[in-house]
Amino acid sequence: MPNMKIAVIGGDGTGPEVTAEALKVMDAVAKLEGFTIEKTDFGFGGDNYLKTGEILPEGAVDELKKFDAIFLGAVGHPDVAPGILEKGLLLQLRFQLDQYINLRPVKLYPGVETPLQGKTPEDIDFVVVRENTEDLYAGIGGFLKKGSADEVATQTAIYSRKGCERWLRWAFEYTQKRNNPKGKKLTLVAKTNVLTYGHDLIWRTFQEVAKDYPDVEPDYNHVDACCMWMVKNPEYYDVIATTNMFGDIITDLGGIIQGGMGVAAGGNINPDAGGTSMYEPMGGSAPKYTGKNVINPIAAISAGAMLLEHTGQPAAGARVMKAIQSVTGTKMKSQSAGKMGYSTTEVGDLVVDALS
Amino acid sequence: MPNMKIAVIGGDGTGPEVTAEALKVMDAVAKLEGFTIEKTDFGFGGDNYLKTGEILPEGAVDELKKFDAIFLGAVGHPDVAPGILEKGLLLQLRFQLDQYINLRPVKLYPGVETPLQGKTPEDIDFVVVRENTEDLYAGIGGFLKKGSADEVATQTAIYSRKGCERWLRWAFEYTQKRNNPKGKKLTLVAKTNVLTYGHDLIWRTFQEVAKDYPDVEPDYNHVDACCMWMVKNPEYYDVIATTNMFGDIITDLGGIIQGGMGVAAGGNINPDAGGTSMYEPMGGSAPKYTGKNVINPIAAISAGAMLLEHTGQPAAGARVMKAIQSVTGTKMKSQSAGKMGYSTTEVGDLVVDALS
Ligand SMILES: CC(C)[C@H](C(=O)O)[C@@H](O)C(=O)O
Ligand SMILES: CC(C)[C@H](C(=O)O)[C@@H](O)C(=O)O
Repeated sequence: MPNMKIAVIGGDGTGPEVTAEALKVMDAVAKLEGFTIEKTDFGFGGDNYLKTGEILPEGAVDELKKFDAIFLGAVGHPDVAPGILEKGLLLQLRFQLDQYINLRPVKLYPGVETPLQGKTPEDIDFVVVRENTEDLYAGIGGFLKKGSADEVATQTAIYSRKGCERWLRWAFEYTQKRNNPKGKKLTLVAKTNVLTYGHDLIWRTFQEVAKDYPDVEPDYNHVDACCMWMVKNPEYYDVIATTNMFGDIITDLGGIIQGGMGVAAGGNINPDAGGTSMYEPMGGSAPKYTGKNVINPIAAISAGAMLLEHTGQPAAGARVMKAIQSVTGTKMKSQSAGKMGYSTTEVGDLVVDALS
Repeated sequence: MPNMKIAVIGGDGTGPEVTAEALKVMDAVAKLEGFTIEKTDFGFGGDNYLKTGEILPEGAVDELKKFDAIFLGAVGHPDVAPGILEKGLLLQLRFQLDQYINLRPVKLYPGVETPLQGKTPEDIDFVVVRENTEDLYAGIGGFLKKGSADEVATQTAIYSRKGCERWLRWAFEYTQKRNNPKGKKLTLVAKTNVLTYGHDLIWRTFQEVAKDYPDVEPDYNHVDACCMWMVKNPEYYDVIATTNMFGDIITDLGGIIQGGMGVAAGGNINPDAGGTSMYEPMGGSAPKYTGKNVINPIAAISAGAMLLEHTGQPAAGARVMKAIQSVTGTKMKSQSAGKMGYSTTEVGDLVVDALS
C-alpha cells in the first residue's frame, strides 16, 4: 500500500516536463526514506479544454479531495484567451478546496544569481504567507451603463473575520515554528491608511491574534514600503503575512529576487483536518520552450519538496531541499532556460544523485 | 508682476528643509531664465493639526486653486496617528483638486547607486502615469457585524469610463511627446485576469483610446509580472499607465530602483484648463533627521523642476534637471541622509552653482 497518494496535473506547455522531474526526484527520495508515492494523472489544461470545452469536469473537485495532495505543473495555453484557464482551473481549485494559505518561501539558493547588488543567500531568506481565498479575488463586481460614455465599473474586496483569523493564526504559528535565530517576526503587509474598511478588519484581527503569540514580534509595513524594502533590505524580513492581491504582487517580486521563475515555488495549503493542498512551481507554461528539454525544473522540484514537507514527510522534503542547493551551488551555470549547462532531465538527474 | 504664483506647503519633519532648497534652486533658475516666482506659505501639517484640530481649514482648497501650482514638502508627524494627515491633506488635495494624473519619472541619475546589478542610467529611465482619483482610493466600503466573530468588511474599487479615458488619453499623449528614440510604447499595468469587472473597463478603454495614437505601441503587463520585470529588465519600459492602487506600489518600487526616496519626485497633475497641480518629493517627513541639515534635497529639487516644466517654464525645468544630474554625477558621495558628503543646504547650493 502506498504511503502517499498524489494527484498530478501536469497542465500546459512545459508543465508536464518540469512535473516529470519533480516526480522523479520525489520517487527517489521516497525510496531512500522508505515510503512510496502513488500518482494519478489528471489531464486538465488547455489542450483538454480546447478538445472538450471543459476546464474542470463535473465531479473533478470531489475526486481530487480523495488525494493526500495535488501537484500542479503549469496553466496557460497560447490558443486559450489569457485568464480562462487561470481562473477556471488554478483559482477554482484554490477556492473550492479552500486552500486559504498561499505559502511562498523566498530563498536565494547558493550559486543562484539575484538581480540585487551585494545580497547573499543569508540576506534573501524569508517566507510570504498570502491569504488565498478572499479580497479582490472574490470575483465580485459589476458594471453600470456598460459600453456607454457614463459607464462605471466596480470590483469589491471582501474580507471576513473568520478568513482573516485562520490565515493570520496560521502565519503566527508558522513564524513560531520557523524559529528564525535572528528573531521571530511576522510583518503584516497591507494598506491600512487607505483601505480603511477592509484593512481595518485585518489590522484589528492581527493585533488580537498577536496576543496569543507573545514570542513573535508583530510588525507592520504598508505594501508600497514593503516593495522598496524587499529590494533594498530583504534581510529585514522573517515572515510576511499579506492579502491575496498584494500577495500576488509581492510573491512575484520575491520570485525575481530569489533568481526568477525557474526557482520559485509555492504551496496552496488547506491546513484543516482532511484538507487537500496543491503545490506548484511559479513559472508559467512557457510555450516557447515546450518540448525542448531546456526549461528549469528546479522550481517544480522545490514544489515537490514543499509537498513532501507538508504532507507528512518533512525529512524527505528537507533532503530534497538540500540536494537542490547542492546542485544550484556546485553544478548549474544559470537558472535561465537553455543556459543551465544541463538539460531539464539532466538537472533532475543531478538532484536525484545529490540525494545520497 | 510675478510670472508664476505658487503655494508652498512645507509640511512636517524635514519637509520644510527640503522645500527651502527646492525654492532656492527655482528662484535661481527663474532669475537666469528671466521670470519671477511669488511664493505663499501655507502652514498645513501635523503641528498645525495638533494645535488647531484642523487639517485643511474651510476655504483652503478654494484658496489653493488661485495659484499656478502647489509645492508640497512632506506629510506625516510622529504625534499624529498614521493615515490621518496623509488622508486629510495629501489625498484630500489630490481628490478635491481633481489631480487625476500622478506622474512619476523613474530615472537613474548619473552617479546614483541603484540596488539592481549591472543597470545603468540608460537602463532605468521610464515614467509611470498613475491614475490618481479612482480605484480603491475612493474610500468606499463598510462593515457587517463589526467586532463580532462573523464580521465582514468590504472595500470597493470604482472606475468610471470618463476617469479611465482622461487618464489613458493623457498617458498616450505623454508617450507621444516623450518620443522615446527606442520606440514609443505605453504599457498598461493591471490585473485583467482577476479583476474581471473593474479592469475590464480599463482594458476596453485602453484599446479604444489606443486607436487615436497609432504611433504609440500599446502594451500590457499584469501587475505581478511588471514588478518582476521592473527589477529584472527595467529597460523594457518607456511609459507605464496604471491604476491608483497598483501605481502606489509600482512607483515606490520605481523609487527604490532609481536610488531611493532621496531622489524620487512626483507630480499630482490636473491637466485641464484652470487645473491646479501639486508637486512633491516622494520621501516622507523623516522625523529622525529633522533639523539636522542632513536630509537629501535632490527629490524636492526634482519636484521643483517638474513644477517648472509643467507650469509653463519647460526650459527652466530642463535646466534644473541638468544641474541635478551634474551634482549627483560629479559631487555627491551618496543619496542617503547624512552620507551625501555635503549638508542639505550645500547640496542646494551645488545645484544652484551648476545651473550656470
Ligand atoms: C495566474 C494568476 C491567476 C495567479 C494569481 O493571480 O494568483 C498567479 O499570478 C499566482 O500568483 O499564482
Ligand atoms: C501617503 C499615501 C496615502 C500615499 C498614497 O498611498 O498614495 C503615498 O504612498 C503616495 O504614493 O503618494
